Formats: sequence, structure tokens, C-alpha cells
Amino acid sequence: MTSFTAIDGRQYLEDGRRLTDRLLDEYMPSEEKEPRSLHEALRYSLMAGGKRLRPILALAAYEYCGGDASQDTDKIYRAMAALEAVHTYSLIHDDLPCMDDDDLRRGMLTCHKKFDEAIATLAGDALHVIAFELMAGTGSVDVVMELAEAVGTSGMLGGQMADIEAEGRPVTRDEVMNIHCRKTGALIRGSVRIGAILAGATSEQLQRLTIYGEKIGLAFQIVDDVLDIVGDQELLGKEVGSDTKNQKATYPGAIGTEASRDEAARLIDGALEVFGPDEDNFLMYLARFIGQRES
Amino acid sequence: MTSFTAIDGRQYLEDGRRLTDRLLDEYMPSEEKEPRSLHEALRYSLMAGGKRLRPILALAAYEYCGGDASQDTDKIYRAMAALEAVHTYSLIHDDLPCMDDDDLRRGMLTCHKKFDEAIATLAGDALHVIAFELMAGTGSVDVVMELAEAVGTSGMLGGQMADIEAEGRPVTRDEVMNIHCRKTGALIRGSVRIGAILAGATSEQLQRLTIYGEKIGLAFQIVDDVLDIVGDQELLGKEVGSDTKNQKATYPGAIGTEASRDEAARLIDGALEVFGPDEDNFLMYLARFIGQRES
Repeated sequence: MTSFTAIDGRQYLEDGRRLTDRLLDEYMPSEEKEPRSLHEALRYSLMAGGKRLRPILALAAYEYCGGDASQDTDKIYRAMAALEAVHTYSLIHDDLPCMDDDDLRRGMLTCHKKFDEAIATLAGDALHVIAFELMAGTGSVDVVMELAEAVGTSGMLGGQMADIEAEGRPVTRDEVMNIHCRKTGALIRGSVRIGAILAGATSEQLQRLTIYGEKIGLAFQIVDDVLDIVGDQELLGKEVGSDTKNQKATYPGAIGTEASRDEAARLIDGALEVFGPDEDNFLMYLARFIGQRES
Repeated sequence: MTSFTAIDGRQYLEDGRRLTDRLLDEYMPSEEKEPRSLHEALRYSLMAGGKRLRPILALAAYEYCGGDASQDTDKIYRAMAALEAVHTYSLIHDDLPCMDDDDLRRGMLTCHKKFDEAIATLAGDALHVIAFELMAGTGSVDVVMELAEAVGTSGMLGGQMADIEAEGRPVTRDEVMNIHCRKTGALIRGSVRIGAILAGATSEQLQRLTIYGEKIGLAFQIVDDVLDIVGDQELLGKEVGSDTKNQKATYPGAIGTEASRDEAARLIDGALEVFGPDEDNFLMYLARFIGQRES
């Protein structure tokens, strides 16, 4: 197992982000191709930046399970682009006036503000189908099923619906956990599993990485909730306090900010426990990064 | 090849419609399952009726190519449910206020009118992913790719975008043809191809059925345009004249009603030509049915 220093970790994150940007540019339909307005809109939202966490997680899980990303890269690269495409579709639809009605995302105009609502709805739909096309392009029906499970009504969409229904009323810790595990957790867990499956992971590896994915997925969203209260607006590229303003179901709202931090730390520790005591790898660095991130 | 009388044909259509209704009920998530509001909304739109033309076409192409729908039915049944799910998703999003802003569909309230816009947006998204999940459940990556191609930006979504962009300005016959071939034709062609592929069609069969699918797909939408002018409101279950009111790009708008009828008849003749002079089968009945339908 490679040893990861913090410098290695930051480098891997930066390389993964650049690689994902390159893959998105390569795999997405050109703006020169009709329907241009639709391709322009979906590229605008895809290229608005972001950590590219889901593709990086898939790549890291792939390499952890023995996949060689320097040879025969086509499958894992397609899966990486698919994961970012499906994530971006969910953001575009989430920002629509009938949903969260957000004007800004990562410091830029949201898709329906930059273009219009019809184009944003269709651009989201387009990224959704492109994600499935790319995933099918790996040749593995298993990862197509994984993606569908992660973003379907038992996963991300179910979480979005529950999130909307919980708005404006007090919620318990268990309810928020349930929403977060589906809305954000399911796709993070799915990203890890998809990378592992494409590398031909053993069932023991897959089982351990599934627990890892579940725990960091929930921790990621708890940290997000906390940053919405105590975060630095400039680092985040969005207004803080929007969850409170929109009366969203959040961990700090249910159990307080300090208890939320403790819960996130416990989850990260739990994620690290799936690895052996002498291991040191990028997935472990990523778990710690998610626990400590400030943007 | 089985001989088809008009009575056989009507019976096959009716059987196919009932079978599809049963499959949809079987494969869609239960209303009792969380998130209930989302499952209720997607079932409402799916069960609002319709001819179930796409699943029936897939089944007919499957049987034509030697698939036996009385044994090992799971694959073709999943594909049939997937095709109706993806069609219904497109209708739900198409009816949204930011798109066509329709209150009625098949004589019933549209999804966003019956529920609300957020639920309708998510119910459409949910049917989209369920369609890919069902298609992947056939075990064939090829049909997942076919579906993605049919509903992606080169197909249905591209047609929807071009349709919106053409609103309110005069269009040529070639432009309308281009819109119709993608917006409606691509999924009809895809339905035929998916049924054929699942039956293990020869490349010669697939080639002929692709031409058949293209021609009936375009004819279907031309007849739809004509019915919007001369159709019987009660048979159609929707207001006639809506295309004119919404300044939509239509065949009659580009070349007149009579020339449109002729064009549809020529396309149906062309579709029938892919079969031998002595053949008589349900796909041929379906082509004639599409050419002559009144609702």
C-alpha cells in the first residue's frame, strides 16, 4: 500500500480534479453540435467548478482494489465523467425556482438564471441520460444498476423529496440522517462502489468500501450543514445561513452544532476503521479531508 | 409468418395495452413505499392511459424476430415497462409551466396541476432513472445504449429543444421533419430496435426494422399534427388547435394539411415495403393503424 503524506493527498486531489475536468470536456457533446443551446447550458453547469469528489472517490476506490488507471483507462474514465454528470444534473434541478430557487451556485449564476427554466430543465435531463450512456459505455450492466440505485427514489431522488417535505418543520436526528444518507450519501457510496466494481473488487473489499462510502457520505453532508452556519462565505462561494433561511432539515438544527461536529468526527473514525492498522492510503486521506474541509 | 386480420390486429393492440398496464403496476415502486408522494405522482401519470404504442412496438418487433414472449419473458417485459416509463417522463416535463404549460393530458390534470411543480419535476426524473434501471435489468448493455441514444440530445431531448426554439416563427418542411424525427421518431425507432435486439435479430432484420421504425415514427407525428387540426376533441381527450395556439412547428403549418396526409401515407407505404410481398404480420397492421388512427 502506498504511503500518503498530506502533500501526496493534496496532489492526488488536484490531479483528480484536473483529470475530471479533462474527461468532462472530452466526453460531453460539443457546444458546436446541435442543439447548441442545450450543450452550452450543460457545459456551463458542468464546468462551473467544484471539488469533483465523486469521480475522485471512484478513481481512488478503483486503484485501491487493484485497478490500474494508467492502462485500459476507458472504463473508469467514463464512470468518473458519468458520476460528475449525474451530480450536476441533480444540482441544476435542485436550483430550479420550483425547488430551492437558488440564483447562485459556486459563486456563479445557476443554470436557469444564466439561461432560462426550460433550458435548465432539459440540460438537467440531458446530463441524466448522458450519465447512463457513459456508464453503459463501460460495458458493465452492474455499474449501470449501481448508478440507478444511487440516484433513484430509494437514493438521491427519495432524499430530495423527503428534504422538500421536511422544510419548515422541526425534525429529529433520525429523520435528518435518513434524508442526508439518501440525498447526498447514496451517490457518494455509489461512487466508491462503482470504482471498486470496475476494478474487479473481491466481495470482502466491496463490503468494506461500502461501509466506508456510507460513513463518509453522511459525514460529508453533516460537515456541509455545519459550514452553512460557521463557514467562510468566500471560501464556500455561496451565502452562508441559507439552510436556516430556507428552513431546511439539518443536523445542527436537530442536535446542535457541537454535537454535529462530534457525529461527523465519529463517522470519519468509523470509515477509517475499515482499513488495517498499518494501512495508509488516499481513501483514508480523503476521509480525513472530508471531516476537516472548510469549503 | 402469422396472418393478421383487422380483428387479430385490434385484439393484439388491446392485449398489448393490458399487458403493459399490468407490467407497469408490477415494476413500478409501490405507493405504500416512501417517498409516497413521489411514487403516487409517477403512478398517476403512468396510469393516466395512452395507447402504450412504444411497448407494443417493442413486443411486436421482438416476436417478429423470433423472440418467444410466452417463455423467458422477463427481459422483454422489463424493456416494455422501461419504454413507457421514459415516454411518460418526457410528457411530464413537457407539460411543465416553463415548457408547454399544459393543464390537461389525456383528459386528466397534468402531473404538476394534480400535485405541484417540484413533485412533477422529481416524478419525471424518477421515471427517467427507473427506465434505465429496468433496461439494465435485461442484462444487455446494448439496449441501455439504444435507450440513451433514443432519448438523448441527438434524439428526443434534442427534438424538444429544437421544438421550443422553433416556436412562433415560420419553419420549412425540412426543419419540421428534423424536429419530429428526433422528438417523437427517435424513441419509436428505438422501441422497435430494442425489441429486435432482445430477440437476437440478425443484422439484416435489424436494418430493415430500423427503416420501418424511422418511417412509422415520423408518420405518427405527422398524423398527430393533422389530428390537432381536424381531429375529434372527444376521441383525442385533449383540446384540438393547441399547436396553432402555441405557434408550434408542424407539418400542416409548413406544407398544408393535404400534403401532410400524403406524406404520412407515403411513409407508411415505405414502412410496409421492408416486408416481403407475401408477408402479413402485426408490425404491418401497426403501420397501417398509425397511418389511419383518429385518436
